[in-house]
Amino acid sequence: MYKKIIGFLLFFVSMNTFADDGYRLWLKYDLISNKQQRESYAHFTKFIVANTQHEIIKVATDELKSGLQGLLGKQVSVLSTSKNAGGIVLQLSKNQALNDEGFTIINQNGNVVVSGNTEKGILYGTFELLRSIQTGKSLANIFITSNPKIKLRMLNHWDNPLGTIERGYAGSSLWKWYELPENIDPRYKDYARANASIGINATVVNNVNASARFMTKEYLLKVKALADVFRPYGIQIFLSVNFAAPKILKGAKTSDPLDPQVRAWWQAKTKEIYSIIPDFGGYLVKANSEGEPGPQDFGRTHADGANMLAEALKPFTGVVIWRAFVYKPSSKDDPKGDRYKEAYNDFKPLDGQFDRKVIVQVKNGPIDFQAREPFHPLFGAMPKTPLAMEFQITQEYLGFSTNLVYLAPLFKECLESDTYVKGKGSTVAKVVDGSLHDYNLTAIAGVANTGSDRNWTGHFMSQANWYAFGRLAWNHELSSAQIADEWTKMTLMQDEKAVKTVTNILLASRENYVNFTTPLGLHHIMGQGIHYGPEPWLERSARPDWASAYYHRADSVGLGFDRTKKGTEALLLYAPEVQNQWNDPNKTPLPYLLWFHHVGWKTKLSTGNTLWDELCTRYYTGLASVKEMRQQWSSVKSNVDKEIFEDVAGRLAVQEREAIWWRDACVLYFQQYSKMPIPAPFPKPERSLEEVKTLVETYQLR
Amino acid sequence: MYKKIIGFLLFFVSMNTFADDGYRLWLKYDLISNKQQRESYAHFTKFIVANTQHEIIKVATDELKSGLQGLLGKQVSVLSTSKNAGGIVLQLSKNQALNDEGFTIINQNGNVVVSGNTEKGILYGTFELLRSIQTGKSLANIFITSNPKIKLRMLNHWDNPLGTIERGYAGSSLWKWYELPENIDPRYKDYARANASIGINATVVNNVNASARFMTKEYLLKVKALADVFRPYGIQIFLSVNFAAPKILKGAKTSDPLDPQVRAWWQAKTKEIYSIIPDFGGYLVKANSEGEPGPQDFGRTHADGANMLAEALKPFTGVVIWRAFVYKPSSKDDPKGDRYKEAYNDFKPLDGQFDRKVIVQVKNGPIDFQAREPFHPLFGAMPKTPLAMEFQITQEYLGFSTNLVYLAPLFKECLESDTYVKGKGSTVAKVVDGSLHDYNLTAIAGVANTGSDRNWTGHFMSQANWYAFGRLAWNHELSSAQIADEWTKMTLMQDEKAVKTVTNILLASRENYVNFTTPLGLHHIMGQGIHYGPEPWLERSARPDWASAYYHRADSVGLGFDRTKKGTEALLLYAPEVQNQWNDPNKTPLPYLLWFHHVGWKTKLSTGNTLWDELCTRYYTGLASVKEMRQQWSSVKSNVDKEIFEDVAGRLAVQEREAIWWRDACVLYFQQYSKMPIPAPFPKPERSLEEVKTLVETYQLR
Repeated sequence: MYKKIIGFLLFFVSMNTFADDGYRLWLKYDLISNKQQRESYAHFTKFIVANTQHEIIKVATDELKSGLQGLLGKQVSVLSTSKNAGGIVLQLSKNQALNDEGFTIINQNGNVVVSGNTEKGILYGTFELLRSIQTGKSLANIFITSNPKIKLRMLNHWDNPLGTIERGYAGSSLWKWYELPENIDPRYKDYARANASIGINATVVNNVNASARFMTKEYLLKVKALADVFRPYGIQIFLSVNFAAPKILKGAKTSDPLDPQVRAWWQAKTKEIYSIIPDFGGYLVKANSEGEPGPQDFGRTHADGANMLAEALKPFTGVVIWRAFVYKPSSKDDPKGDRYKEAYNDFKPLDGQFDRKVIVQVKNGPIDFQAREPFHPLFGAMPKTPLAMEFQITQEYLGFSTNLVYLAPLFKECLESDTYVKGKGSTVAKVVDGSLHDYNLTAIAGVANTGSDRNWTGHFMSQANWYAFGRLAWNHELSSAQIADEWTKMTLMQDEKAVKTVTNILLASRENYVNFTTPLGLHHIMGQGIHYGPEPWLERSARPDWASAYYHRADSVGLGFDRTKKGTEALLLYAPEVQNQWNDPNKTPLPYLLWFHHVGWKTKLSTGNTLWDELCTRYYTGLASVKEMRQQWSSVKSNVDKEIFEDVAGRLAVQEREAIWWRDACVLYFQQYSKMPIPAPFPKPERSLEEVKTLVETYQLR
Repeated sequence: MYKKIIGFLLFFVSMNTFADDGYRLWLKYDLISNKQQRESYAHFTKFIVANTQHEIIKVATDELKSGLQGLLGKQVSVLSTSKNAGGIVLQLSKNQALNDEGFTIINQNGNVVVSGNTEKGILYGTFELLRSIQTGKSLANIFITSNPKIKLRMLNHWDNPLGTIERGYAGSSLWKWYELPENIDPRYKDYARANASIGINATVVNNVNASARFMTKEYLLKVKALADVFRPYGIQIFLSVNFAAPKILKGAKTSDPLDPQVRAWWQAKTKEIYSIIPDFGGYLVKANSEGEPGPQDFGRTHADGANMLAEALKPFTGVVIWRAFVYKPSSKDDPKGDRYKEAYNDFKPLDGQFDRKVIVQVKNGPIDFQAREPFHPLFGAMPKTPLAMEFQITQEYLGFSTNLVYLAPLFKECLESDTYVKGKGSTVAKVVDGSLHDYNLTAIAGVANTGSDRNWTGHFMSQANWYAFGRLAWNHELSSAQIADEWTKMTLMQDEKAVKTVTNILLASRENYVNFTTPLGLHHIMGQGIHYGPEPWLERSARPDWASAYYHRADSVGLGFDRTKKGTEALLLYAPEVQNQWNDPNKTPLPYLLWFHHVGWKTKLSTGNTLWDELCTRYYTGLASVKEMRQQWSSVKSNVDKEIFEDVAGRLAVQEREAIWWRDACVLYFQQYSKMPIPAPFPKPERSLEEVKTLVETYQLR
C-alpha cells in the first residue's frame, strides 16, 4: 500500500519537476538542502503571531508562511497571540530609533520579534527575516535595526499604453491596459511582492513621454485596479503626466501654467484622482525635453509648471517630481556649447523657486545613462531644492539583454562621489538622502528593466540590477559585494565556491563592459536611435549632440572632449575640489580622462602606455574579460538549474560576439586618426572598418 | 520509514502544484482521471517500436513517451524491434493511399501501427494517436487514414525585428533576434511542437512589411538557428522580403525586377540562403501595397516581380508567395470606385503570366479581415494561377485579446462559399486545395496570434483559433463543432456537460461578435489606426477608403454600400449564380445585406422588422449574448483550473463593457440618420454620442 502511494507520488513529482524559468526571482524559497540548517531554523519558526486583520500584516504573514514552507518544508500556523517561545512575532512598536518604515528584528524571550512603528515597517522586517534565512544567517542572536535612508524609493516604467516599453529589453509591458480594470493578471501581485521585498515603495507605471489618456477617467479606473493590488505591499502609484493634457483633453484652451482655467483643470483633475485612488503618490513630469510639451512653450519656467501642479496637490499627500533631463540643441560650432551644461544652466537659477511639494529628479550623470559618467553637476548645486536621483536599471546603453552588466558599482560610484559643496564628505548620496541640505522630502528612482519576459528582465542576471537598485535605495551604504552575495545566494545557489565565482563575475562585469565599449572616459559613441552597438563614425545626426563625433572629438592630434577652461568650461560647474580632481589631464583618473580632456594620441598615461596603446589595450582586454566570464560561468554549471545555465551561457556567447564588434569598430575607426598600429601582442581585427559599418547599418534598417 | 518518505513527497507535491498558466496549450497530457480508461489504453501502450535514428522519428517518439507518461502515468520504453503485441509501432510504409505527409493508424496483430510514406507522415500520425487518447477515443479498433488536402500549411508572423508584432495582442515577438543565433529560447521548440501537432508545416517568421535586414548574412544565421529547431518538427522557414532589398543593401543601383544586376543579386542571395538553410521554403512578398516597394515602382507588373524571384529560386525547392492584398486609394466621389475591386482588377489580368513556382496569396475577403466578409472575388477567377488562402488568426478586427471569438465558423464560411466558376460545388476550398483547377502547388496561411504572453495568445480561448486554423489547413472538411470539441477536451476538461457548455460558447461567439459590432453586413466602422472599438463617425482619413463612412454610407434614406450594377458594380466580379444570391436586396441573406445594398431605414426585412429596428435588435441582443457567455462560463467554474477560469472570466467582463460601447456608439450614431427611436423593449443608451466619441478618442491618444 505505502509502496503504491510512494510510486504514485514519485510519478507526480517527476511530472512536476519543471526547469527553473527564473520567474520566482530572488524569492525562490527552495528547500534548504542542509538538514541541520533546516532544523536550526525550525527552532525559531514553530508558529507565527500576527494580527492578520490588517491587509499589510496579512501580506507579510502569507509571505512568511509560504517562505518557510518552501525553505524549511514545514507548515507554520498563524496565531493571534501566544505565550510560548520558539515562534516569530510580528508586532507594532513605538520605537524612537525607527522612522515610518524602519524595523527591528530581535531574538527576545525565545521568539524572533519583528517590529516596526507601522505595518509597512513590519512588512519590510518580514522580508529581511526571510532574507536572513535565505542567505543562511543564524537567528539565534539576530539583532537588526534598519531604517530606509530615502523616503520615496521608486521604479519608473517607461511603458507605453499600447504595451511597448521605451528602452525595454524584456518583452512587452507588464500592464495590460486593454484588459484592465476587469482582468487582474496574477503577475501584478508578484511584481508587488518582489518590490516590497527590497523596499521599493512607489512606482510610476507609465512612460515619461506620457500619453494624456492616463488623465482620463477610463484610464484612472485601470490605474486604480493596479493601485489596489499594490497597496497591501506598501507601494504607491504615481503617474507621468503630459503637460499639455488640459488642452489635449479639451479641458482648457491652453496648457499655460499661469492660465486660471488650466490651474482649475489640474485642481479638479487631481481631486478626481484622489477620489479614485486615495493614496495616489503624485506626478512625474518630463517637460520641454526631447519634444515634450512644457511651461516654456508659454514663456514660463520649469518652476512655474511644477508649482502649478504642486498647488493642485496641496490638499493631498502627493508630490510633484519634475525631471531635470533637458537639453536644448547645442551646436558643435559653438566653442562653449556643451550638452553637459544644459540642465545645470536651466535649473540652477531656479533653486529656491520651487514649491515645497516639488522634487527635481536628476539623472546620475550629465549626458544620458552612459556606462560611466561623472556625477551630475546639479547634485550639490541646488541646496534649496530636494533633488531625486534617477538611475537607469534597464540597459539602454549597457548592452540591452545580451550583456551581463551588474550595475551596483555604477550606482555606488555616483552615490559616493564627493560634491565638496559643504566640504569633504558632501557626497551625492548625502544630497539625495537629504542629510546634506536638510531635505525631508527625498527620492530615488530607477528606470525599470522589467517586462513580460518570463524571467522579468530578459537577461537572467539583470534581475540582480533590479535587486541592487532596491537595496541601495533603502541603504546606499551597502556594498556592491554584499548585495551581489545576497542576490546570488537567494537566487542561484548556496555553495560557497560557486557563490564566489558568480559574485566575481558580477563585480567585474561593469568595468569589463566599459573597457570593450567606452574606455578611458569615451562616451555616447553607440549606434544612433536604438543605442545598440558601436557607431563612433556617426558625425551627423538630427541634432549635433546626438552624433558620436560631438562627444569623442577624434582628430589627428588626439581624442576626447576638452571641458576645462580651455574648452567648454563644463568642469567649472563643479566645486573647486572637484575641478582639481579632473582639471589636469596628467592627474585625471583614467576612467574620466576623455570626459574632460582632448589627449594626444602619443601622450603617455599613468599606465606607461601612450593614449593610443592604452585605448587598444582596453578594447582587447575588455574582450578577453568576456571570454573569462564565459569560462567562469561554465565552472558553475553543476550548481545552476539547466535552463538558467543555458540561457546565461547563450547570452554570454552573444556578448562575446558584440564585444569583438565594438573592439573592431572602435580601434579601426580611431586608427584613422591616430595613424598608429595596433600594439603588440594584439592581432589586427579580422575585418575592415567598412565591414563593421555594414554590420551596424544592418541593425538600423527599419 | 515509508511514512516519512510519503510525507516528504507529499510536501514536494504541494510545493509543485502550480496554477495552470495555459503554456502547455492543447498538449497538456494531464493524467486521465478515469482509472478504467487509463487501463484500457495501457493494453496498447506497453512499448514503442521506432527507429529513433531519424530526427523526426526521434521527435515523434519523445512526444509519445512524454504524452503517455502524462496521460497514463506510465513510462513506456522504446525498442528498435519487437515481436510482441500490445505496443505502438511507428513505421514507414509504401501506401499508395497516402501522400507525402499522410498517415494511417491501424490496430494490427495486437499493435497500434502508425505508418506513413515519410517520417513526417509518421510524426503527424503520432500526434493524431495522442489526440485520440486525449479525446477519449478507443484504440481497440482504431483505423484512421488521413492526408492533408493542402501542401503548405503556414503561419505568417507579422513580427518586427525590434520585437513588436504588427496587430499582435499577446505580448512581444517569440523571436529574440538580438539573442540569436547563440541563445536558443526553449520556447522555440514548444512552438514547433504545437504546430506539428496540428499539421502546420511552414512558417514565415518576419512581418510582410519586411525589413531588408533579414536578407543579410547576420540575420540569415539567426534564421538558420530557428530553422534548425523547427526542422525535426517538419516545419520549413520562409522569409518575407522587402522588394527594395537589392538597393537598400547596396547590391544594385535599383530594385527594378527587369534589371540584370537586380536579377543577379537575387540569384546570388538565394544561393547564399540555401547554403545556410538547405530546406528554406521561399519568399513571401507584400509589394506595392500600403507604401511597400514593388515592381510597379519601375513600371513593371506583379508578375514581373514574382517571376524574377521564381527565377532565383529555380535551382531550389522554394516557392514565391505573392500577396494580392493591394488597393490604390479610391475616391468616394468616383461612383464606381471601390476598394472591393482593387485586387481583382490588378491581378485577374495577370492570370497565366506567373511562373510555375509562384502562388498568389489572397485574403479571405475583399476588404480586410472583417468579422464577416463575402469571399474574395479572386477565388475562382484565376484558373491558371495557384491561389493561397490568407486568414487572420490574430484578432485585429475581432476585439484583440479581450474578446472571445472562435474563428472556425468564419474560416469555414469562406471555404464553403461556392464560386460557381465550374458549376455548383466550385467552393473556395476547392480552389485553394487545388482540386478545382488542378494546381498541385497549394497553400493556406494564417496570420499568427502568438506572442510572448505566457499562454501564447493573450486570450486563453484564442488558443482554439490557432488550433482550428491548423486543423482546417489539414482538412477543411472538419466541422467547427468537431474542432471545438477536440480542443476543449484536450485543453480544458473531459466532463461531457462542461465540454458541451464550452463548445456552445465557442460556436456562438463569432455571430455574437458580429451582432454587437457589425451586424447585417456592416463593415470597417472600427476605430481608425489601431482598429479598436467603434468609430462609425469617421468620415475622413488619410485615405478615403480608410474612413468608416466610405463603407457604411449612412444617409437620411438608409444604410449600406450599393455594390450592384446601380452602385460600384463590385458584385459583377462574381459568377452569375453568386450575383443572383446577392443582387436583390429582398433576397440577399441578412448577414450580407449591407455589403451590397443601400437599404432604406424603414424597409421591411425578412425578420419582419424594419432595417432600423433590426439593426438595433442585433446590437442589443449581441450585448445580451455576451452576458449569456459570461453566465455559461461561470457554470463551468468547477471544471476549470482557477487561474484560467479567472482570466477568461475577467476578459469576458471586459468584452461586455466593450459590447455596450459598440452598441451605444452605433445606435446613437446611426440614429442621427434614421431619426427613429430605439425600438421596444430596448432601453435607450445611458450616455450620449459625444460621451462615446470622447471614450474612443481616449484610446487613440498617442
